[in-house]
Amino acid sequence: MDESTRRLVPLARAESLRLLGTVPFGRVVFSRQALPAITPVTHVVDAGAIVIRGPGAPPVVPLAHDRAETVVAYEADVIDPLARIGWSVVVVGAARLVTDPRLLVRYEALLPRWVAEPEDQLIRITPELVTGYRFVNDNAVDAAVDAVPT
Amino acid sequence: MDESTRRLVPLARAESLRLLGTVPFGRVVFSRQALPAITPVTHVVDAGAIVIRGPGAPPVVPLAHDRAETVVAYEADVIDPLARIGWSVVVVGAARLVTDPRLLVRYEALLPRWVAEPEDQLIRITPELVTGYRFVNDNAVDAAVDAVPT
Repeated sequence: MDESTRRLVPLARAESLRLLGTVPFGRVVFSRQALPAITPVTHVVDAGAIVIRGPGAPPVVPLAHDRAETVVAYEADVIDPLARIGWSVVVVGAARLVTDPRLLVRYEALLPRWVAEPEDQLIRITPELVTGYRFVNDNAVDAAVDAVPT
Repeated sequence: MDESTRRLVPLARAESLRLLGTVPFGRVVFSRQALPAITPVTHVVDAGAIVIRGPGAPPVVPLAHDRAETVVAYEADVIDPLARIGWSVVVVGAARLVTDPRLLVRYEALLPRWVAEPEDQLIRITPELVTGYRFVNDNAVDAAVDAVPT
């Protein structure tokens, strides 16, 4: 057994956001009708915020109107499930629809659609809490996990 | 542009649980101090329930005592982020600590530890709501995504 060589290493905020920027997708977490909900989406990290785009229907994150905001969590990871090494980053912050026409053009280009749905949304998450862990096995070479996009 | 050939195909409950059983890990979603929280964990599907094991500290899902239960969501997916095809399954249900000594022995064997932490927990989720989608591109051969463990 090599369990004694396994550790969780907390990551600093900057390193967590950097890792988030190295992968193209994650999962957004929110409450829907008082139940926990989660949906996989694609993302880009832009000017310190996370912009997400998900499957069009149902809406990715329920927002009552164009200027509403709601607190969500956003998680991305690169994990080798057999070796149990890799990293996971979680951001908690306010989510809002992207409505600025210039930003819409920018993010439309960076984040391709998942499906042919006109109701498709672009959502911007402002990171408030940022936490990250690296799952390390001191007996294994785990640096290579960084390079694997999923 | 091939967007017009992209579709979300809802999956039946049985097919969703079957797909969940084909992968070794996912993410558990819950509320912590009124904020959405998410942690990657390993899982097995056993007798219709999902048994999860996560990094030992902090506790994977906050449960006040050995017989407490709390509603969580559990998500697993296999997604090719570049082709934007694959599947995602979400289960919502009650989570409880596994305390039965026979089941503990069984799941200890099926789910290796992530880290050397004695406070490590095994948690059983009873699926109530089960939803799943397949992300399809009719122009692409996406059956192969089933076979990719991550």
